[in-house]
Amino acid sequence: MTGSVDVADLIRQSREGRARAVARLISLVEDASPVLREVSAEVAPLTGHARVVGITGPPGVGKSTATSAVVRALRQQGNRVGVLAIDPSSPFTGGALLGDRIRMQDHALDTGVFIRSMATRGRLGGVAWATPPAIRVLDGVGFDVVLVETVGVGQSEVEIAGLADVTVVLLAPGMGDGVQAAKAGILEIGDVFVVNKADREGAQAAVRDLRQMISLGTPREARAYEEPARWRPPVLTTVASTGQGVDELLDTLERYQQWAEGSGELRGRRLRRAQREIETIAMTALRERMGDLTDGRRLDELAAAVVDGRLDPYGAADEMLAALAASSRSSDPPA
Amino acid sequence: MTGSVDVADLIRQSREGRARAVARLISLVEDASPVLREVSAEVAPLTGHARVVGITGPPGVGKSTATSAVVRALRQQGNRVGVLAIDPSSPFTGGALLGDRIRMQDHALDTGVFIRSMATRGRLGGVAWATPPAIRVLDGVGFDVVLVETVGVGQSEVEIAGLADVTVVLLAPGMGDGVQAAKAGILEIGDVFVVNKADREGAQAAVRDLRQMISLGTPREARAYEEPARWRPPVLTTVASTGQGVDELLDTLERYQQWAEGSGELRGRRLRRAQREIETIAMTALRERMGDLTDGRRLDELAAAVVDGRLDPYGAADEMLAALAASSRSSDPPA
Repeated sequence: MTGSVDVADLIRQSREGRARAVARLISLVEDASPVLREVSAEVAPLTGHARVVGITGPPGVGKSTATSAVVRALRQQGNRVGVLAIDPSSPFTGGALLGDRIRMQDHALDTGVFIRSMATRGRLGGVAWATPPAIRVLDGVGFDVVLVETVGVGQSEVEIAGLADVTVVLLAPGMGDGVQAAKAGILEIGDVFVVNKADREGAQAAVRDLRQMISLGTPREARAYEEPARWRPPVLTTVASTGQGVDELLDTLERYQQWAEGSGELRGRRLRRAQREIETIAMTALRERMGDLTDGRRLDELAAAVVDGRLDPYGAADEMLAALAASSRSSDPPA
Repeated sequence: MTGSVDVADLIRQSREGRARAVARLISLVEDASPVLREVSAEVAPLTGHARVVGITGPPGVGKSTATSAVVRALRQQGNRVGVLAIDPSSPFTGGALLGDRIRMQDHALDTGVFIRSMATRGRLGGVAWATPPAIRVLDGVGFDVVLVETVGVGQSEVEIAGLADVTVVLLAPGMGDGVQAAKAGILEIGDVFVVNKADREGAQAAVRDLRQMISLGTPREARAYEEPARWRPPVLTTVASTGQGVDELLDTLERYQQWAEGSGELRGRRLRRAQREIETIAMTALRERMGDLTDGRRLDELAAAVVDGRLDPYGAADEMLAALAASSRSSDPPA
């Protein structure tokens, strides 16, 4: 326990299903509270149980409705479900996201569901920084599934694929060039593809298109011999607003999970995720130490020297690193 | 001079307009050659002259044609022009980019134009890492304008805005939801907006739309009093394939340049760019040192401990940093 926050008690309450305690823990993480390290250490031995499912796709495909439908279906199976809605927002999308949040209140009275929007805009490291510890908290306090939903705009999609055990990419028919364009990047991150709004014109064409693009991305040998160890991303259809196709999606996720456990893919992804998380924390600490050292001012002077052509960026970086090394010699106890 | 590469001679030849020497210098940068530091140091005193213009926008808006038209117009004014076509590519876009490169060969016989495609996929830091030193090289060897064109997919657009003195965002009419969606992020990075393919249906609607979105993004006070020090991003139209509107675009860029110099915005951006570049180099060096130290293996072990719940990521990061501090004490000379 540090200061006035009783971390162990918050975790205990969270495990009993108290949403306010969960919300408090996530806030401690988001705000980089002084007890963040304590939260991280306390939940560590409790983690490893939850399945982390990423849901992404371009705006307008019905991601929020689909997430809500998936939550409902998971609840019917008796799972506790945590949802992190990651919001790489600009002032211009605020309205839509507010709408999303209101829609998600379908589940507001269900204590087996915890929903949290996380704004990542303007934060150092964005999604990459705050989401992993938040996932870890939800895992540690006993959620069976953590859904990480992101308004898929560019980089955030790729980041989410790095965080999740499995990534579901949602598309919708009739989105024209925009979707064609988006697909290129999206194809590489999806483990499962879903054409939502499948009651609309063009749904079958979208499915056909996607299947073709996926098979183009599959190496020729794999296509010829169909190694059983390889996962071929399936393309499903849903009408999330009526729940149509959602059970099939859950079955597919279950099938993926079995494959991922058996093939070692799941452990591989979790190891890579942990590596990145450790490195990010270490690099952030070094960056802060660098800033503390120079009070921000030394970097300003070095930048001015570079702009004026008096120094090159490598020389400037050397000066920073030398200052850092000198400081760790003087402040740390000898080895 | 280091090894068999005579950097000073390459720079001399590049300043005389030899494209092969320029290409060689850029390759040394891209490949993180052992002489990269020497290249960086040698060009530093020669930099600060070039205008760096970012051109971005979603796929399909005619970016490559527009860049080519801008190059032609700048050449007519007597400028030496360097083009860096940044390619955050996936295997699925290879075809289109090859097409772009072929089209750009309009300028293949013009020694006042240097064009280089840079692949950033899979590279640590991507656009952010390799582009700044490449811009610096082109600036240092005497190009008057450096155009940085990116196939605008998500994050790369934002990164380009951080690299350029001025960012031109290209859109096209009739792209539907995709563009609506893209606009949100795009509005914040554009200094000048261009609706290309303006001979197509819907061009005026697209211009109107954009102007409205831009005015929504302008704080109320600024709208009421119209401070002269504020730059309001204009919305132009072009038909790049015929050259229509390109002169107006150049006039606007000139007007922007004057405003940016007078208001201090230009220096501010260049200082921020230099800061980020210095920090990136320093952090990369630290990351490498960390990897060298642990032979990569220690990180694997720490990640496994985190996945298994035996350690939390903060504890793991502490262990890495302690190893780093111990090593800089033992290998560096005392302060």
